[in-house]
Amino acid sequence: MRLSRYFLPILRETPKEAEIVSHRLMLRAGMIRQESAGIYAWLPLGLKVLNNINRIIREEQNRAGAIECLMPTIQSADLWRESGRYDAYGKEMLRISDRHEREMLFGPTNEEMITEIFRAYVRSYKDLPLNLYHIQWKFRDEVRPRFGVMRSREFLMKDAYSFDLTAEGSRHSYNRMFVAYLRTFARMGLTAIPMAADTGPIGGNLSHEFIILADTGESEVFCHKDFLSFAPPPADVDFDSPAALEEIVGKWTSRYAATSEMHDAAAFAAVPEEAKLSARGIEVGHIFYFGTKYSEPMKAVVNGPDGKEVVVQMGSYGIGPSRLVAAIVEAFHDDAGVVWPEAVAPFHVGVADLKVGDAATGKVCADLVQQLENAGLDLLHDDRDERPGAKFATLDLIGLPWQILVGPKGLAEGRVEVKRRKTGERELLSPDEAVARVAAAVKQARA
Amino acid sequence: MRLSRYFLPILRETPKEAEIVSHRLMLRAGMIRQESAGIYAWLPLGLKVLNNINRIIREEQNRAGAIECLMPTIQSADLWRESGRYDAYGKEMLRISDRHEREMLFGPTNEEMITEIFRAYVRSYKDLPLNLYHIQWKFRDEVRPRFGVMRSREFLMKDAYSFDLTAEGSRHSYNRMFVAYLRTFARMGLTAIPMAADTGPIGGNLSHEFIILADTGESEVFCHKDFLSFAPPPADVDFDSPAALEEIVGKWTSRYAATSEMHDAAAFAAVPEEAKLSARGIEVGHIFYFGTKYSEPMKAVVNGPDGKEVVVQMGSYGIGPSRLVAAIVEAFHDDAGVVWPEAVAPFHVGVADLKVGDAATGKVCADLVQQLENAGLDLLHDDRDERPGAKFATLDLIGLPWQILVGPKGLAEGRVEVKRRKTGERELLSPDEAVARVAAAVKQARA
Repeated sequence: MRLSRYFLPILRETPKEAEIVSHRLMLRAGMIRQESAGIYAWLPLGLKVLNNINRIIREEQNRAGAIECLMPTIQSADLWRESGRYDAYGKEMLRISDRHEREMLFGPTNEEMITEIFRAYVRSYKDLPLNLYHIQWKFRDEVRPRFGVMRSREFLMKDAYSFDLTAEGSRHSYNRMFVAYLRTFARMGLTAIPMAADTGPIGGNLSHEFIILADTGESEVFCHKDFLSFAPPPADVDFDSPAALEEIVGKWTSRYAATSEMHDAAAFAAVPEEAKLSARGIEVGHIFYFGTKYSEPMKAVVNGPDGKEVVVQMGSYGIGPSRLVAAIVEAFHDDAGVVWPEAVAPFHVGVADLKVGDAATGKVCADLVQQLENAGLDLLHDDRDERPGAKFATLDLIGLPWQILVGPKGLAEGRVEVKRRKTGERELLSPDEAVARVAAAVKQARA
Repeated sequence: MRLSRYFLPILRETPKEAEIVSHRLMLRAGMIRQESAGIYAWLPLGLKVLNNINRIIREEQNRAGAIECLMPTIQSADLWRESGRYDAYGKEMLRISDRHEREMLFGPTNEEMITEIFRAYVRSYKDLPLNLYHIQWKFRDEVRPRFGVMRSREFLMKDAYSFDLTAEGSRHSYNRMFVAYLRTFARMGLTAIPMAADTGPIGGNLSHEFIILADTGESEVFCHKDFLSFAPPPADVDFDSPAALEEIVGKWTSRYAATSEMHDAAAFAAVPEEAKLSARGIEVGHIFYFGTKYSEPMKAVVNGPDGKEVVVQMGSYGIGPSRLVAAIVEAFHDDAGVVWPEAVAPFHVGVADLKVGDAATGKVCADLVQQLENAGLDLLHDDRDERPGAKFATLDLIGLPWQILVGPKGLAEGRVEVKRRKTGERELLSPDEAVARVAAAVKQARA
């Protein structure tokens, strides 16, 4: 992508309304724009990151056996009356009357609708287990939206819903998502710690929040330091094996970890002093097992092996991709800007022509672009007629993992400068070497 | 994907409420489910088609130089007061009050919001031309939603918005989208005819609807038969060349074509009798040039080359991906079900084990699945314990372009049956030949 033809509205000033670093950097880097309180437009750079996050989520949901569908944003109030949540949900629900005065709402979550879909079609235990997910915009009318897309009113959510014949089967479905979540966050470069959690308006009696540690997190959390060195589950984990998953979940729940709501001071006191970690965290995922809370009132039943009707066991599993963009910025930035992990970076590499109009730099940039594209890399080519300083600042701010800087001085010796954003390391290489260097690094990060 | 683990709720009965064939087939094939009047959930098979359509749209938008962003669904009423459309839009607009009694709405289109984004950032003519698009759910509160996703209330729309310094530049931007649309529909297997169109609530004085011919179409259309044999623009068309695009647009507007609202009986009378085509059509895209209709009241201006402020020239360009799914079914079906064009088919090929439990058919199916996946094909493996007749009917109904049928009788002679859905042609081939046959056909269709 040529930057002169792209839409990357960098802000020079730090926006005053932004209280946390991710909000500031996302505004400055031209990733998002607020359209109303807690409602954001995703500008091209922000959308690319969001899509990369969605891609990783999808791959791991599919790997764990979940199947993607897509439910609408607008729901009927009657559906929520069936579960008893219509009145209970309170003012966070955005309630709407249509032209025929029918009561509708903008879905804050989809337990009711997916249960309606399930009961409409599924009749037999033979069709279980089933896990359906979608990635769709939700709305929660927060009293005080803030922190940019970290706590917005309109937000993207991946929500999965599992259906099983037995509580034991449902536990396996829960573990599938638990393990998928560990892999999902690890692939984004995040260490997410599963913590015993309150179930709130979703309900149920088994629940984990996945929390990443960050000073600006809204939750106070307490956990064992061992979590920071646990290796995530491998790609070839057998999701069909209850024992294999139970072992992974067992390991990741073997140490103390809780948010403040669930904190047990006595249990935490038993953690060795040097292993105690008391910090702030950002919730990036939340999973629930709630048995028959929705299937019972909504009559989602199947015929069991003995021909008798069985009310199905359910769980639900949420990840917030839009919040994750902000959480990743909180975890990966420095004074100059964002430092994207390779897996979610909007472009793999930026190529900056430091003297636009110079035939030599122009030719080398064009060749580099061609070669990098041939190697399957997504790149941003800064071909704007700007000072080198402005180009360095832009590339640092938007945080692409690699920069290739092409100036007349280096070229006189046949060299371009390759800079790794994360470490600031710089190397003078020939253009061919530069392509090989970056392509190899990106390939390795993808593996 | 193993069908036993998929969610494909086939209906045996034809749903009574469905008046047109696409609605009937999409319900029967388990692609969609109505959740409220005119509001649909996309079940897994339907979502796959919708995503394939979105992919083609994105590729062609990007090729034409448009840049993807993503605006929110909920908009502020104040934004629409600026353009004067808040009161004018009428009851089709879904109006909402949030918890603080602020007036909001579910966006039916995004001219106002994109103009707000543009004016917030763009200051100079040097940043033009600019074309931003997004693919987002919209809501239009139709009095009488019907025909399934053909005329739903919540629907997906790709809408692009162009900004130019001059009317001449805006004409080029309009032509870019005109040509992109011709390519987009052609890639889906559709012949879409651009017709002079009324501009309605969007406004402006230059507009084309892209119409595909179908007996169940809502619009009455009149055109010259030559359109049916025009070749679509090639992939390497130079979108930066005004002359090249003008030539293509000139060709595609050189014959009479109009919807009933714009029909000129005298002009149509001049079309040679044997070339007259009077038919019904489905609108699948609509493009508008409206100059300064929004930029003037909303003060979207840039500094021109002479330093003076210039109000920018705008156009907008819509395609309905959710409606397109239905339109494609209207165009491609037979008595047995849908017949997907290769480019949008939910899976390229279905592999049916005709005797589940038989070691030989099971082994060959497993091998076929592996080989087809290695060849990069997306396949559905019918491993359900069902009668062959039910499997044939399911595969015909869901309309995958290719079927590989694996039964014990054929296998005794080392053969599987390859059926092409579109023609009904059947061939008895070895499993290796079957893979090669299907892979080659899919590869050709993709090219």
